[in-house]
Amino acid sequence: METEVLVKQLKQKIEELTTVIEASKRITSTLDLSSLLRIIMQLATKVMHAETSSLMLLDETKQELVFEVVEGGEKGEMIKEIRLSVNEGIAGWVARNGEAVFVPDAEKDERFCNKVDMKSGFRTKSLICVPLKVKDKVIGIAEVINKLDEGTFSPDDVSLFSALIDHAAIAIENAKLYKDLQGLFLSTITSLATAIEAKDPYTKGHSERVTRLSLAIAGKIGMSFKEKERLRIAGLLHDIGKIGIPEGILAKPAKLNNEEWGIIKQHPAKGAEILKPIKQLEDVIPVIRHHHEKFTGGGYPDGLEGEEIPLGSRIITLVDAFDAMVSTRPYRPAMKRKDAINEIQRCKGTQFDPKIVEAFLACYEYE
Amino acid sequence: METEVLVKQLKQKIEELTTVIEASKRITSTLDLSSLLRIIMQLATKVMHAETSSLMLLDETKQELVFEVVEGGEKGEMIKEIRLSVNEGIAGWVARNGEAVFVPDAEKDERFCNKVDMKSGFRTKSLICVPLKVKDKVIGIAEVINKLDEGTFSPDDVSLFSALIDHAAIAIENAKLYKDLQGLFLSTITSLATAIEAKDPYTKGHSERVTRLSLAIAGKIGMSFKEKERLRIAGLLHDIGKIGIPEGILAKPAKLNNEEWGIIKQHPAKGAEILKPIKQLEDVIPVIRHHHEKFTGGGYPDGLEGEEIPLGSRIITLVDAFDAMVSTRPYRPAMKRKDAINEIQRCKGTQFDPKIVEAFLACYEYE
Repeated sequence: METEVLVKQLKQKIEELTTVIEASKRITSTLDLSSLLRIIMQLATKVMHAETSSLMLLDETKQELVFEVVEGGEKGEMIKEIRLSVNEGIAGWVARNGEAVFVPDAEKDERFCNKVDMKSGFRTKSLICVPLKVKDKVIGIAEVINKLDEGTFSPDDVSLFSALIDHAAIAIENAKLYKDLQGLFLSTITSLATAIEAKDPYTKGHSERVTRLSLAIAGKIGMSFKEKERLRIAGLLHDIGKIGIPEGILAKPAKLNNEEWGIIKQHPAKGAEILKPIKQLEDVIPVIRHHHEKFTGGGYPDGLEGEEIPLGSRIITLVDAFDAMVSTRPYRPAMKRKDAINEIQRCKGTQFDPKIVEAFLACYEYE
Repeated sequence: METEVLVKQLKQKIEELTTVIEASKRITSTLDLSSLLRIIMQLATKVMHAETSSLMLLDETKQELVFEVVEGGEKGEMIKEIRLSVNEGIAGWVARNGEAVFVPDAEKDERFCNKVDMKSGFRTKSLICVPLKVKDKVIGIAEVINKLDEGTFSPDDVSLFSALIDHAAIAIENAKLYKDLQGLFLSTITSLATAIEAKDPYTKGHSERVTRLSLAIAGKIGMSFKEKERLRIAGLLHDIGKIGIPEGILAKPAKLNNEEWGIIKQHPAKGAEILKPIKQLEDVIPVIRHHHEKFTGGGYPDGLEGEEIPLGSRIITLVDAFDAMVSTRPYRPAMKRKDAINEIQRCKGTQFDPKIVEAFLACYEYE
């Protein structure tokens, strides 16, 4: 009989470890921070048979815990507005002490703070709260609340949840490092593009505005995440070829003559040329090269038409033209936004892809 | 008796799973690809009680397997020169079929190819070779060779090794993505810096040369990995403030007058200003701002002296001056390398930090 109990316990332990291994594989398979946090807590809720669960990250400057994910329950979004001081509640205790806490009955635990329950109308009975630690430093906490069916968690559940969250903490750290590097890349190209624009005071902020509106259009036409990331880079760098254009022409306070126009028109090809050695940008470079093509042909540098022109270029062409119209130029005042929208509409199907014009108009519907 | 065997087996399984969990935590804790690959195989060699082990990545274009890590044995570096076609050996079979292979006796396996043993003088007896798979795609293989003590591996060892390598594959993929993003960042700033330099044909390639030599000096004085990474970015971007200097002054084919010099001297501060919004560059920006200070004071923009000047700036100052001396200028020919080195030596302790001059000279000793 005793051996039977032992065998049962050992088998249960094997099941638990196998769960941790499978979960850790799923958790470490993404470097995207926000989807990672969601995956972790979905997995934790399921594995732990919890009614709800949540993950909070520590805001070190303010010494507050901020909800990042709330799984289960209906009041998730409402709860996410709450910030907890590290001096309050069980979550605060765990963040301060860096140790897991198992509370079989929340009402009997004096550390328990019912601020969240009050707001959500939820009733916390039993909970496990564990620290998210990276290199012995607490970066947040994760908790599961109320065990389904059985009513309360067991001490065994604590070790399972801790093991899961151990892996999660490593994955979160990696995802943060990746996000940080992405941020560095994007802010550096933004700063450099802005500095280049500064040579022509009339185009200040142009690349950032073009990027923002292009992404809004991309959202309307259902571009994939990857395509949008490429479009973001192309938007920020679309005028980078202007580095190669003499300042006298870029900032000329009058209309350009034919020869000068010829030089200005080299900027999309020059931009593509500058970025050519960068393998990771091979899908971005054509978007930059073709951002002055026309939908019915006759644009530059290659006179492409219709679907031959990369989709991203067709978006930037339109937004680029719109931003130029509503900006002041040395030789003319800014056009009114309404008039510029009408002008875009007038060129639907000729200069611009009709599908992109529709998406553009949809972006301005709610203004 | 039967239950005792079962209990023993279950306990062994628990031990194995615990090993995998611990190993996977260590493996996923780094995003640095080369140290990651080493950690994986050190861990695998130990856990599997193997005499040697190796990890090969697939070169998809050439359809060849390339040794990345060889652990144990004395001929590691020699073996690393070998490339295997995916059509040869057990490693090739595993890469082609994406399935693990357990070979109790290599000599009796017709897929075995003794090319590596011939070169290393090593004798392969028993081995396990498993594919490194990411999203069902083979990216390489890992193998452990000859079990210490017991002589041959068991089928149980196959599942343990496979589980380890499963986690390793995910970690490798993450590290590759991180490395790829780092590459994107560095090549983009290199391309943009080069494009900005192109406005003045006499400085073409200057930032890249400055970066390379600065890193060589950093190596001599034992800078940490992190400091070197910062120095690399500062080197590439040190002249970025020149975006804000009129072309007429930058490319003037004669000596500059006082007023023009005053404008040129703004470039370190302008560069720092451009990058100021980028939080991740907060340790890089001062290196850029102060790359024209003098060791005994009197440089620009802030007239700092000695250790007040960031170490990275003290390196770039010297290398910048050296590269200018050995480059042709519109108003003077390039100085001979030997004369430029003498000039640097002459300014040791005045314009330049003596410690940096020493490290610089050490870099040129073997030329």
